[in-house]
Amino acid sequence: MIDGCPAGLVVDPGFIQQELNRRKPGQSHITTQRKEEDEVEFLSGIFEGKTEGTPIGFIVRNKDQHSPDYNNLKDIYRPSHADYTYMEKYGFRDHRGGGRSSARETIARVVAGAIAKQLLMPLGVKISAYVSSVGEVELKKSYQELDLSLTESNIVRCPDPEIAQKMIARIEEAGRNHDTVGGIICGVATGVPAGWGEPVFNKLHADLGAAMLGINAVKGFEYGSGFEGTKLPGSVHNDIFTKSDQGIITLTNHSGGIQGGISNGQDIYWRVAFKPIATILQEQKTVDLAGNETTVLPKGRHDPCVLPRAVPIVEAMAAMVLADHYLMSRFPRINV
Amino acid sequence: MIDGCPAGLVVDPGFIQQELNRRKPGQSHITTQRKEEDEVEFLSGIFEGKTEGTPIGFIVRNKDQHSPDYNNLKDIYRPSHADYTYMEKYGFRDHRGGGRSSARETIARVVAGAIAKQLLMPLGVKISAYVSSVGEVELKKSYQELDLSLTESNIVRCPDPEIAQKMIARIEEAGRNHDTVGGIICGVATGVPAGWGEPVFNKLHADLGAAMLGINAVKGFEYGSGFEGTKLPGSVHNDIFTKSDQGIITLTNHSGGIQGGISNGQDIYWRVAFKPIATILQEQKTVDLAGNETTVLPKGRHDPCVLPRAVPIVEAMAAMVLADHYLMSRFPRINV
Amino acid sequence: MIDGCPAGLVVDPGFIQQELNRRKPGQSHITTQRKEEDEVEFLSGIFEGKTEGTPIGFIVRNKDQHSPDYNNLKDIYRPSHADYTYMEKYGFRDHRGGGRSSARETIARVVAGAIAKQLLMPLGVKISAYVSSVGEVELKKSYQELDLSLTESNIVRCPDPEIAQKMIARIEEAGRNHDTVGGIICGVATGVPAGWGEPVFNKLHADLGAAMLGINAVKGFEYGSGFEGTKLPGSVHNDIFTKSDQGIITLTNHSGGIQGGISNGQDIYWRVAFKPIATILQEQKTVDLAGNETTVLPKGRHDPCVLPRAVPIVEAMAAMVLADHYLMSRFPRINV
Amino acid sequence: MIDGCPAGLVVDPGFIQQELNRRKPGQSHITTQRKEEDEVEFLSGIFEGKTEGTPIGFIVRNKDQHSPDYNNLKDIYRPSHADYTYMEKYGFRDHRGGGRSSARETIARVVAGAIAKQLLMPLGVKISAYVSSVGEVELKKSYQELDLSLTESNIVRCPDPEIAQKMIARIEEAGRNHDTVGGIICGVATGVPAGWGEPVFNKLHADLGAAMLGINAVKGFEYGSGFEGTKLPGSVHNDIFTKSDQGIITLTNHSGGIQGGISNGQDIYWRVAFKPIATILQEQKTVDLAGNETTVLPKGRHDPCVLPRAVPIVEAMAAMVLADHYLMSRFPRINV
Repeated sequence: MIDGCPAGLVVDPGFIQQELNRRKPGQSHITTQRKEEDEVEFLSGIFEGKTEGTPIGFIVRNKDQHSPDYNNLKDIYRPSHADYTYMEKYGFRDHRGGGRSSARETIARVVAGAIAKQLLMPLGVKISAYVSSVGEVELKKSYQELDLSLTESNIVRCPDPEIAQKMIARIEEAGRNHDTVGGIICGVATGVPAGWGEPVFNKLHADLGAAMLGINAVKGFEYGSGFEGTKLPGSVHNDIFTKSDQGIITLTNHSGGIQGGISNGQDIYWRVAFKPIATILQEQKTVDLAGNETTVLPKGRHDPCVLPRAVPIVEAMAAMVLADHYLMSRFPRINV
Repeated sequence: MIDGCPAGLVVDPGFIQQELNRRKPGQSHITTQRKEEDEVEFLSGIFEGKTEGTPIGFIVRNKDQHSPDYNNLKDIYRPSHADYTYMEKYGFRDHRGGGRSSARETIARVVAGAIAKQLLMPLGVKISAYVSSVGEVELKKSYQELDLSLTESNIVRCPDPEIAQKMIARIEEAGRNHDTVGGIICGVATGVPAGWGEPVFNKLHADLGAAMLGINAVKGFEYGSGFEGTKLPGSVHNDIFTKSDQGIITLTNHSGGIQGGISNGQDIYWRVAFKPIATILQEQKTVDLAGNETTVLPKGRHDPCVLPRAVPIVEAMAAMVLADHYLMSRFPRINV
Repeated sequence: MIDGCPAGLVVDPGFIQQELNRRKPGQSHITTQRKEEDEVEFLSGIFEGKTEGTPIGFIVRNKDQHSPDYNNLKDIYRPSHADYTYMEKYGFRDHRGGGRSSARETIARVVAGAIAKQLLMPLGVKISAYVSSVGEVELKKSYQELDLSLTESNIVRCPDPEIAQKMIARIEEAGRNHDTVGGIICGVATGVPAGWGEPVFNKLHADLGAAMLGINAVKGFEYGSGFEGTKLPGSVHNDIFTKSDQGIITLTNHSGGIQGGISNGQDIYWRVAFKPIATILQEQKTVDLAGNETTVLPKGRHDPCVLPRAVPIVEAMAAMVLADHYLMSRFPRINV
Repeated sequence: MIDGCPAGLVVDPGFIQQELNRRKPGQSHITTQRKEEDEVEFLSGIFEGKTEGTPIGFIVRNKDQHSPDYNNLKDIYRPSHADYTYMEKYGFRDHRGGGRSSARETIARVVAGAIAKQLLMPLGVKISAYVSSVGEVELKKSYQELDLSLTESNIVRCPDPEIAQKMIARIEEAGRNHDTVGGIICGVATGVPAGWGEPVFNKLHADLGAAMLGINAVKGFEYGSGFEGTKLPGSVHNDIFTKSDQGIITLTNHSGGIQGGISNGQDIYWRVAFKPIATILQEQKTVDLAGNETTVLPKGRHDPCVLPRAVPIVEAMAAMVLADHYLMSRFPRINV
């Protein structure tokens, strides 16, 4: 359910389906071969092609689940999954595919993100994400040095075709090893005007960070100069203001487009770290619900690397944060 | 104002003052020489030494502000400060010391954090933070290899005495250069039981990340294996469950004590990146409110490095997040 | 979607269906003859008959809508409906059956209320509502003088069989006149322990009142001594505390079981005013979207009186408020 | 603390003080003779006479409290006060003057309401309240038949001078009897444009009702036709739309200016029931903390009737609700 979308937004169902297709399994030989259709049915909030200003309910049924694949997991805690913590918290869990901790839950985020993107587009806000590392294979160029229109030109969603091939090879290798591999996704939002974000409790980058950290498997977030920027002296790190045809801009952008929690009109960019997927097709030691030592060997069809399918999820989460702040930013002052 | 603290908590004002003293200016020659007293007056919510279960109002008056130091900033946008973004958002700002974007605002966080710590202590939860890098001076040991009781033994708050001296020298150098320097703070929470955190919208690490990103000057957050962990294969990264005297534990802790957004009973640890402070005692180019080129040279008494004073702030924010999740965790299931 | 229900609650689908049947159209000759089946399909949050502690998604499809009945309303503002205000707010509306302002939306409330009731039952909390007036036909007895087990024994849901017949006759008369009639519903919650409710921002009676006022067609709410109590002197109105086998009780209960926003262990009781339904099968003057004078004569199958079907809705809303406060009340103090 | 006020609002401190003076004790011989000064000191959020868009902190110190007056109440539960429920909830309470359950807490509401009023004034929204009954002394005229500018012309705040004298006599009588008396306050908001309010979860009248029910001593709320309206047939109750110079209006206003939870541009009016104050200067039976029978005879200076001083509180709460909905209403649709 999507709450808070204003009325009158023309919604293109084709665009939503296209975003879902970027996330869905079975897109290429480097993702899981599960065949989830992921068709969205809207239940409320859209009438004659436009949002009504009321909550948008929708449902995406899973038509290809193989619940029996998960029967052997009923009494076992899979390593680095949420089985144990759910059980400790709730005393009870749905063992089929991880239940609510399954990354299948991100379908809803992509749908909502697709609507948020359509809200932002007419404002000139564009959000792009791409894979910038897979394991130790790293794209060292900054986003300014890349042609982001190439991201969708290969199955790993890296805008540098050469590095993309290395990443694909790295994922294939992980698959052959019955292992998995993590990586980093970069995100960029252009066209965000100055003034979005709240000064203390909902800093724009804090909301963006929380959104990214809310994606399954994410272990870290940085924006602007990030961890590397801690090594720069202030005299180099500071972004000097200057006047341009577009009004006041900064000469550098170590701030990542956000100062004091509020956008300054420059590009917003960030990086998100994804751990390697916990489900590996190898036998691993673990314990059962009673705490007895045992082993687990997952069945089913799993991704060796979450990164390519996570690109639209990163974009969707960013779109929701920016759309929320757009709506919040509409009345910061009297006499606007 | 602190909301949500249960009734009956015995509050030690001495402990609160001690935490404030760890944050206050003028502690040592490597921090600003402003002499803020930072004495807290409680207005409500504490009666006969115990919390009443109702909001805790308090005030810390600034007795040493030098507002005239900021007069020359009235019409100027300081580089990498929030002057420009506040103006764009609100059309209006308090130019004295940055107004609400001033890090002086973190006093309130330290007070609230000190109460949160007192809530957590009887549960066996202990939160420690320390400086792990200043510019390129880096403490490479993990927190398990360190004696965290040494953190307060030196003015930079690094538990390795040798590295601490190098950090102090690095900050002195920045001061001599009229420049500033950033760095990294590590945090560790021990004793958190399994089951704290929410599965989707308030994942424990997402709330922790948002809290850290809400601290002034923070540019990045990672927990557990973080960005480095993206390079590990799943077969190495996975934390194997085993049985011990303390119940079910993990043999490694790449998860950073959180799985699926919920604590698993292992140590929670994280890293926070701080940019170099934007106020440098050098003349810098900038623009005025009308967009005309000008320069700015700050007056006043400023820190060359925020890290030593930020350690209690990191701890305070973590304490609030954990206390909130403790309270939230009290009723996840029927028949507890 | 229901959020916040703890895990492990055994849910009886039969009970939920039974509650829905109390609300559904076509129950008797005094309600609308629409034949909505109102079967609930749960989508998430319930596994093997128990709640999972995660959101409970569900859907109740409308299998008997006659959208063409509403075609003539597309360009007209029905008197005392939300057509005009929705249009003014959103610039756009779903004219079929009132869209989101339709009382059909209360189905979701009854489902959620049925789960809340099942959470409260084991605690000994029982919620009962009944019709206490229809137009000028009024049941003057207080709830203590009535046998509330008789409420469901007649189609108008009034526990006094004699008055019930008069109410039914009054509704039949309204139907014959192609008119509608309003009335009052009384609610009682027994078994609520002392200590539920918040002292300022979520007073128990304020939340209860807001919930009642959120039901379609409600114009007023009072609890305890209500409007009549304003005429009593304090010396009579005050409820004297005394000791009993059940601990401290009050001799009278003008307070309606709530003092300072918090339950005191006595019965909570309240009254809710429902206006006559706006849809009458008579031609009425109104204006069209352009503001031109016109008339409207509704088609379709409508209730002459909302009261009988609103009884389970009043109970459902009260159950949700009490369940929320039960969950909130679980940690008001340390060392519970 | 006031959160959510936009930047740039010019705040008139004189107006705020004037509103506080309407609430303060000792205004006349029919109110308590306590001499609280009630001077407000603003701590943040206002700079150079204008709001900054950030939270507005303020403090009103109580300079005339006589805490010893309350010493005898430490171990006793006063009838119809919150002593018992606070103790049951928190296990602990501040016995001095009721602590947080004291109506002194409403000072903060009057300050916030005075700022909300200043936000609404330029929009043409005017909020007026007046006393419409004291005990059985009732003003039977509707607000349209009254000259509301006379409300402040007498000490009971009733705009009908003749009825006002009877009300004053009734309060004097209560005072002589060492007793108290309740009553009803009417509120009216004019100038609210169509489109404020949310359709389901924050209906304008539900928020207004919750705000009124949150005021100390309130037992009931109704708006528009209220409880009396339940007796009208729909054909009479419906408000017919028509075209006028001001656009679309209704010929009658049983709806009370709100349809489907959203304002329709007509006057919003409502009634609020206040119980007689629980503190009476008579000896009453009660129990002590151990449940033993005892008696209580309050000391101190108390009001025989809360109504005259509650008028500005009713206005303040309404102003806050309307200001909130004004801000919420700013973006219901695209292309506004």
